[in-house]
Amino acid sequence: MMGTSILRQALFSPQSVALVGASGDAAKVNSRPQRVLRQHAYAGRVLPINPARAELGGVRAYASLRDAPGPIDHAFVMVPGGAVPGVIAECCELKIPMVTIFSAGFAELGEEGLRQQQAMVAMARAAGVRLLGPNCIGLVNVTGHVALTANAVLEREALRPGNLSVISQSGSTLGTLISRAQARGLGFSKLVSVGNECDLRVGELAGMLVDDPDTRAILLFLETFRDSGNLARAARRAFATGKPMIAYKLGRSQAGREVATTHTGAMVGADEVADAFFRAHGILRVDQIETLFELPQLVLGRAPPRAKRVSVLTGTGGAAAMVVDRLGMSGVDVTGPSPEVIGRLAAKGITVSDARLTDLPMGRSEGGVYPTILGEFLNSDHCDAVVAVLGSSSRYDPKVIVDRIFSTASSPAKPLAVFLAPKADEGLEMLQQAGIAGFRTPETCADAVRAYCEWRAPAEVPAWDNERVASAQRLLAGCAAPTLNEREAGEVFAALGVECAPAEQVTDARQRVGLAFPVVAKILSRDLPHKSDAGGVVLGLEDAGALMRAVGNMLAHVKSMHPEARIDGVLVQSMVKGVAEVIIGYRRDPEVGPVVMVGAGGMLAELAAGHAVRLAPVSVDEAAAMIADVAPLAVLKGYRGRPAGDTAALARAIHAVSLLALIDTPRVLEAEINPCIVTTSGAVAVDALAALG
Amino acid sequence: MMGTSILRQALFSPQSVALVGASGDAAKVNSRPQRVLRQHAYAGRVLPINPARAELGGVRAYASLRDAPGPIDHAFVMVPGGAVPGVIAECCELKIPMVTIFSAGFAELGEEGLRQQQAMVAMARAAGVRLLGPNCIGLVNVTGHVALTANAVLEREALRPGNLSVISQSGSTLGTLISRAQARGLGFSKLVSVGNECDLRVGELAGMLVDDPDTRAILLFLETFRDSGNLARAARRAFATGKPMIAYKLGRSQAGREVATTHTGAMVGADEVADAFFRAHGILRVDQIETLFELPQLVLGRAPPRAKRVSVLTGTGGAAAMVVDRLGMSGVDVTGPSPEVIGRLAAKGITVSDARLTDLPMGRSEGGVYPTILGEFLNSDHCDAVVAVLGSSSRYDPKVIVDRIFSTASSPAKPLAVFLAPKADEGLEMLQQAGIAGFRTPETCADAVRAYCEWRAPAEVPAWDNERVASAQRLLAGCAAPTLNEREAGEVFAALGVECAPAEQVTDARQRVGLAFPVVAKILSRDLPHKSDAGGVVLGLEDAGALMRAVGNMLAHVKSMHPEARIDGVLVQSMVKGVAEVIIGYRRDPEVGPVVMVGAGGMLAELAAGHAVRLAPVSVDEAAAMIADVAPLAVLKGYRGRPAGDTAALARAIHAVSLLALIDTPRVLEAEINPCIVTTSGAVAVDALAALG
Repeated sequence: MMGTSILRQALFSPQSVALVGASGDAAKVNSRPQRVLRQHAYAGRVLPINPARAELGGVRAYASLRDAPGPIDHAFVMVPGGAVPGVIAECCELKIPMVTIFSAGFAELGEEGLRQQQAMVAMARAAGVRLLGPNCIGLVNVTGHVALTANAVLEREALRPGNLSVISQSGSTLGTLISRAQARGLGFSKLVSVGNECDLRVGELAGMLVDDPDTRAILLFLETFRDSGNLARAARRAFATGKPMIAYKLGRSQAGREVATTHTGAMVGADEVADAFFRAHGILRVDQIETLFELPQLVLGRAPPRAKRVSVLTGTGGAAAMVVDRLGMSGVDVTGPSPEVIGRLAAKGITVSDARLTDLPMGRSEGGVYPTILGEFLNSDHCDAVVAVLGSSSRYDPKVIVDRIFSTASSPAKPLAVFLAPKADEGLEMLQQAGIAGFRTPETCADAVRAYCEWRAPAEVPAWDNERVASAQRLLAGCAAPTLNEREAGEVFAALGVECAPAEQVTDARQRVGLAFPVVAKILSRDLPHKSDAGGVVLGLEDAGALMRAVGNMLAHVKSMHPEARIDGVLVQSMVKGVAEVIIGYRRDPEVGPVVMVGAGGMLAELAAGHAVRLAPVSVDEAAAMIADVAPLAVLKGYRGRPAGDTAALARAIHAVSLLALIDTPRVLEAEINPCIVTTSGAVAVDALAALG
Repeated sequence: MMGTSILRQALFSPQSVALVGASGDAAKVNSRPQRVLRQHAYAGRVLPINPARAELGGVRAYASLRDAPGPIDHAFVMVPGGAVPGVIAECCELKIPMVTIFSAGFAELGEEGLRQQQAMVAMARAAGVRLLGPNCIGLVNVTGHVALTANAVLEREALRPGNLSVISQSGSTLGTLISRAQARGLGFSKLVSVGNECDLRVGELAGMLVDDPDTRAILLFLETFRDSGNLARAARRAFATGKPMIAYKLGRSQAGREVATTHTGAMVGADEVADAFFRAHGILRVDQIETLFELPQLVLGRAPPRAKRVSVLTGTGGAAAMVVDRLGMSGVDVTGPSPEVIGRLAAKGITVSDARLTDLPMGRSEGGVYPTILGEFLNSDHCDAVVAVLGSSSRYDPKVIVDRIFSTASSPAKPLAVFLAPKADEGLEMLQQAGIAGFRTPETCADAVRAYCEWRAPAEVPAWDNERVASAQRLLAGCAAPTLNEREAGEVFAALGVECAPAEQVTDARQRVGLAFPVVAKILSRDLPHKSDAGGVVLGLEDAGALMRAVGNMLAHVKSMHPEARIDGVLVQSMVKGVAEVIIGYRRDPEVGPVVMVGAGGMLAELAAGHAVRLAPVSVDEAAAMIADVAPLAVLKGYRGRPAGDTAALARAIHAVSLLALIDTPRVLEAEINPCIVTTSGAVAVDALAALG
């Protein structure tokens, strides 16, 4: 496969472009890319391919790619879906390194389309040809004057060069972002529509943007993850090189998930898994669409904050209160100035209170007071970011922005978000030109500040005990069936370091056990996942006699009711009493890979939903943070004189379960400890399941 | 006091205005109202009052109100705070019916300012003079050319007349709304800043707007409620006359509550009480500030929906998916067309699927297909509202709006929300001029549709049993102390129709009781609200002997440990076992009046937060809806073979408690049944408290 720099060149800066299926009919979308290339001053060779025309738009046309003079760097394919594989074959033959497929009619239509798409990719891979799309609207290199797209917006809109680059799983959304951002004085470097992502995907493209000197922030419009491994690596490199990566992702509701899948043919996962992914890899996530382009200016050149403390300065109470109210709703700590800041301002003759909102009433904003306070806020360590709110003067007298903001904030020591209360387009553009983050609504302002406050450096891969993982791997490798029985699953968890309730396996009612009573007896069968429903669980057996009767009855009952089930015996287990029951879950998410989950278990789970998800593996510290995130697990703190649970032991258990992510052969698809009983001095697994795949 | 029409005339349409404290210095804010009046073509007499000037801005000035030629309809007072009472005295003497006080320095500064404010109001009331403010920026009657305000925005902005009126507790926010809404082609009728609301308050003003023929929708920007009774009446009249009342209210977070109070000196209550108020009185509440002026067009002339079903039509998948995702997050049911709609469209040769999002890919929107589908959606009964999303064409070729939307939607049979994906100012203004609700962002579009879907007609006052209320009233009137003891509180609840656990009061360990054992013994003392902590509760007494010992020990223990507490005896109560414990609460909220609450009780409450609040009284049906709103009370449905609780009995109990709202003498300030035990065939109060005030 070709080197990254050749690919980047062919993709974003081709010397020659073939337009396969170009039309001479201006009313047809297939005629548009040629016009768009010209309009945006493409300097390379344009080769229209159309068997019926000798010339198109004043440029010589060719009957086929083979007839066109080479070398061709990039083919843009617009022929009907059925003809695309033939064109790809020609591209392979001609060693055209990069092919963008505008044509639709592939995976988005279903199984048959997916197969055709896969066949195309196989052909291209064999020839070292890379594919973008199909069903994608094209791409733009604004700074390089390459607008290779069928997007109607590009025909109407002059492009403002800038340092933001966008990768979008929705082609039309690029137009939405261009028109909205450009009106605000923002400019773009690269814009890519990825379509079905048959070959080049979001992650690999993001990685190319990390290496692109013209890109300072990478914006993602996502419907799903098809390439999370590459995206994770790109995000970590982006973080390391100081290029913020910011995502807007659909799928926060079931309706949104369904709709996002409908028109791209992609699977979409639960939103909390997406959140876990973004958090783990240092990607900022926005809630409102315009925050996507408003946020970069706030975080460019910044590191994640130490805490979530934000101070707000304003001369217009109502507008600032709207921002504060929303910041409070999203868990940001809106904080007034510290005594030190108040003291330093007092020394300059300026009196401010320690109220959450520093509100300078009319008249008091004059005479350099505002910039002096702002300067103190930006340079003290009492907060992690500052919001400045300007009122009507920012509309009618934009010089106020220069006087109050620019004089102080040209290179602020911490992030500064400026919200302009009135409609103030000129002011917003002034802020943008000065490199200061301006916000059009209180909602996007609060959203951006929240996103910054929640930003974390990519999670470190935690330390782990190699021997434990190796021993769990050996146990898994020795399992005969894809579904482990309870004893086998428990042994795997024990090998990883989870404390399991003492248990013995019996196959006959007369067998004795060396366990402390009372015990529970549970049928062991990988064919009966719902043991209780199958009559396969008896609790509270007080002595050996009771156990003997229970085992005998259970074996007889289960064998008669479920003659087809393979019975491995009966698991006898000491009963454990604790402070609370929790569930620890693990699965390989099809989109983002291994994740670990903790939630309330038993009765608690059915009354009080709530759980925390992280990419696996997690450190013990991160596991402790997960426990703190689950509201109903507050029961573990103990209250009303009840004993506290051993959360440290629970965190160790979560860490241990998450180590399943490190075992690749065989892979565990899904595993669960349910319940794990948290006692005053431990966290004990009393039931476990696991499935390989 | 003067009649409403005279007040309305003097407030909004004065024939003459005195500007008390007007300045000749153009740099001073006190000079502004005169300029603003002139600029907006005020046709009445302007009387500047300034002892140092004979003329101001080319108009004869007077040394005092007494010197000015009467009659004066409206005085606008800008003198320093300390001089205001003197001016008010003059106004009273001259019988100036309406005085707007711009000056600050009253209740917003604290206790002393509040006292001065109250004294001023007393003086005005005695003379039949009405006050707006103090600390308010003034008011505007756009259609009547009365701009009586010190708002700088009015000096810079021409006003577009329209049918929206605004009452705002933040003066500066009026400017924010004016600039943003006018840029969208929206116009206003009346705009009022209420400041400290010493006399004229939001509710009374809203009532005047209900009667204002130039006002079709009433928009409120609220920080608190100072006038909820009047506001409730106004809202109900507004609903009855088809004028939607829409509120944006701060205080959704603790930080927001604090900030809202800081700069107006108002108390701000918990947000859920505000929600209950809006819901009870048919007021729509918006979450995002621009929705405040975007929503009216969606709901004007509409009734609340039957269900929350919304269909979405688009030619641009990504943008529509953003709206759908948010609608899903807010509990709206995004639904595709019904088989009937699909059939009718098929008969016209148009194929659509039943997917949640009706997405017409490029090209398929042509030839009248879009308006035909839109017409079917707007006229069928498969959904309650329709969202139409337009892509880039709405920016570059706004005629598409005419072709696709206007042709169908000039008078749609149900609400139609149009979201324009690109920046499309012209298109938004076109929609506004055509009377169609247009939205600038997917977030406000979804917010508006959600607000419409949650809209309900004002709650009916429920039927109640007069005798029960009268009997509870007699019991309350007979209580000696402001805090009832448990037995007294229980009797009041029983009188209202709440089933209480059988109980008897004993004062001596030797007294016998006729109750079924086991019983619980609880100390009876209004001085010991925390009985358990005081050693005043013994559970699970199995027989008369155990009871005798417990009562003896308890009386001795409590008397020795709390010698100051008045002991009324011991309450002996049969123990009740049930499915779940709940709390039923009642209080007179200082802002919105009586409210009733139900939430999880006991252990459940500490694990799973969640409760529902409504204004009291509530019907039994509404009480049932409350129960359904509390997630942890799902336990009452019974699961995993556990018995179901008697939710009907619980609903009756909530209704009964809420009847406390009907008793005015004496008033119950706070009352609680905690716990109320829901059994399989009842809901039994086992502990109760109540406080009068």
